[in-house]
Amino acid sequence: MSGAPYISVVGSGRASGELYELAREVGRLVAGRGAVVVCGGLGGVMEAAARGAREAGGVAIGVLPGEDRRGANRYLTYAVATGAGQARNLAVVCSGDAVIAVGGEYGTLSEIGLARKVGRPVVVLRGWELGPHVAVAATPREAVERAFGMIGAL
Amino acid sequence: MSGAPYISVVGSGRASGELYELAREVGRLVAGRGAVVVCGGLGGVMEAAARGAREAGGVAIGVLPGEDRRGANRYLTYAVATGAGQARNLAVVCSGDAVIAVGGEYGTLSEIGLARKVGRPVVVLRGWELGPHVAVAATPREAVERAFGMIGAL
Amino acid sequence: MSGAPYISVVGSGRASGELYELAREVGRLVAGRGAVVVCGGLGGVMEAAARGAREAGGVAIGVLPGEDRRGANRYLTYAVATGAGQARNLAVVCSGDAVIAVGGEYGTLSEIGLARKVGRPVVVLRGWELGPHVAVAATPREAVERAFGMIGAL
Amino acid sequence: MSGAPYISVVGSGRASGELYELAREVGRLVAGRGAVVVCGGLGGVMEAAARGAREAGGVAIGVLPGEDRRGANRYLTYAVATGAGQARNLAVVCSGDAVIAVGGEYGTLSEIGLARKVGRPVVVLRGWELGPHVAVAATPREAVERAFGMIGAL
Repeated sequence: MSGAPYISVVGSGRASGELYELAREVGRLVAGRGAVVVCGGLGGVMEAAARGAREAGGVAIGVLPGEDRRGANRYLTYAVATGAGQARNLAVVCSGDAVIAVGGEYGTLSEIGLARKVGRPVVVLRGWELGPHVAVAATPREAVERAFGMIGAL
Repeated sequence: MSGAPYISVVGSGRASGELYELAREVGRLVAGRGAVVVCGGLGGVMEAAARGAREAGGVAIGVLPGEDRRGANRYLTYAVATGAGQARNLAVVCSGDAVIAVGGEYGTLSEIGLARKVGRPVVVLRGWELGPHVAVAATPREAVERAFGMIGAL
Repeated sequence: MSGAPYISVVGSGRASGELYELAREVGRLVAGRGAVVVCGGLGGVMEAAARGAREAGGVAIGVLPGEDRRGANRYLTYAVATGAGQARNLAVVCSGDAVIAVGGEYGTLSEIGLARKVGRPVVVLRGWELGPHVAVAATPREAVERAFGMIGAL
Repeated sequence: MSGAPYISVVGSGRASGELYELAREVGRLVAGRGAVVVCGGLGGVMEAAARGAREAGGVAIGVLPGEDRRGANRYLTYAVATGAGQARNLAVVCSGDAVIAVGGEYGTLSEIGLARKVGRPVVVLRGWELGPHVAVAATPREAVERAFGMIGAL
């Protein structure tokens, strides 16, 4: 394997225009720095992050909840099907060296909690404010810079 | 199976004296109303909830992360070993009709997120404040009353 | 927790009359020796084992694949919902000190493989013949005696 | 995502010289036909399959049991860390359109069972003989041809 960092981008499967564009920009910036984008593989923020990654010439890997690759968004480079339902959220965050959460519904909250539980740094963009151990960023650029900074890959 | 409700009590594996006593009282009150207490099976809040359930003559079921029942606290009536690591958090919340979170570190946050994701009502006692879809209670009694109220079992 | 052994009884969710009766007898005999019966919580062999356990005055715990306790057979004493789909097979076998497989379709085969992988002794009754590390029994009594023997609980 | 098939290659983490070479040849042949190789990401058969895939200019994705990418073999193109222990076996087989099992210990047996349970065709090379629903091949070439044939991708 190459030594490229992996950054998990998490967020709702339903994303409004602005949130979608923020996630897409996060994907672009992460891939532009040479990192692999990991996401939950479905729509909304997951799709936007994958789309951004591909637009920047990068790689997006989706980690799906179902028993096959159906439902995978079309921007993924590769997809893995876990068959484990919402337990796949753990796989999404374990696969990244850091996690960027864009917006946030409850699935996202679970991913932030799991990420911190397994020791991953987390940056939130337009979402949950969860105290000193979960960084908050105002822009995609700040989110990505903080995430790379926290894994020593600036 | 009996038709008794199941209430999942979640919280840190390390709990201070006060938090431990709050969780123990939650366990007592839940079991005193005839519900089964489900928890993560280890120490801290999980132990306290199980202990309280047993003190009230009730049943406590632990859902463990490891590949066997080692590490189970001694107050559990029965334990299940999932072998799935932190993915067991999903099983803890899916097993309850409602979830009461006592205190809160990041594992707890993940359980609140997963619980809401799969449609379980959540009441938080001394922990995360997470907006209108996650109720906050000031006392064990209020937490238990709200949890039973939300599942129509008052 | 009491020190009672746990025995996981695994097998198809669809069981013919004879297989159902064999699993029921396994459940009776396991519970009659004071052990907890663990099963996958659904129909067929899972139901039969739970039914037998209850008929012998014992306890049956079901570990379900879904996100709630729906679909649980009515003979279970308690049920846990994992939300993890077929990944719950790992939890079924990890929860037992030994595994008895009655009949066998592919889900059962996966449980035998997982059980051996995590070091549990397995006895098969009317099912897969899988070499020297998976015991084969001809009757429920022989299956139960071998299972208890292998965990030093004869 | 491209429409390339995915083939999961499963087998022991410890593989003898001959078995290792068989798995490597399977990886080469699968990748040579343009399919993505999925494996469990660790050593032995998993490493050999990934190595073969890369030697043929293809892609190998590893689906790891741990909470991070440590332990991944160096031939993988990308790796996903599930954090779910042996429950990751389900993800390995769900991610493939068909499964080729090389040799076989009990983890492999669990993967064959899970694969059939979720409806994936399985071809075994030098391993378990499990009846009419699990094909047996004598050579890597036959295994790969049968796997592609069963998914209509010959």
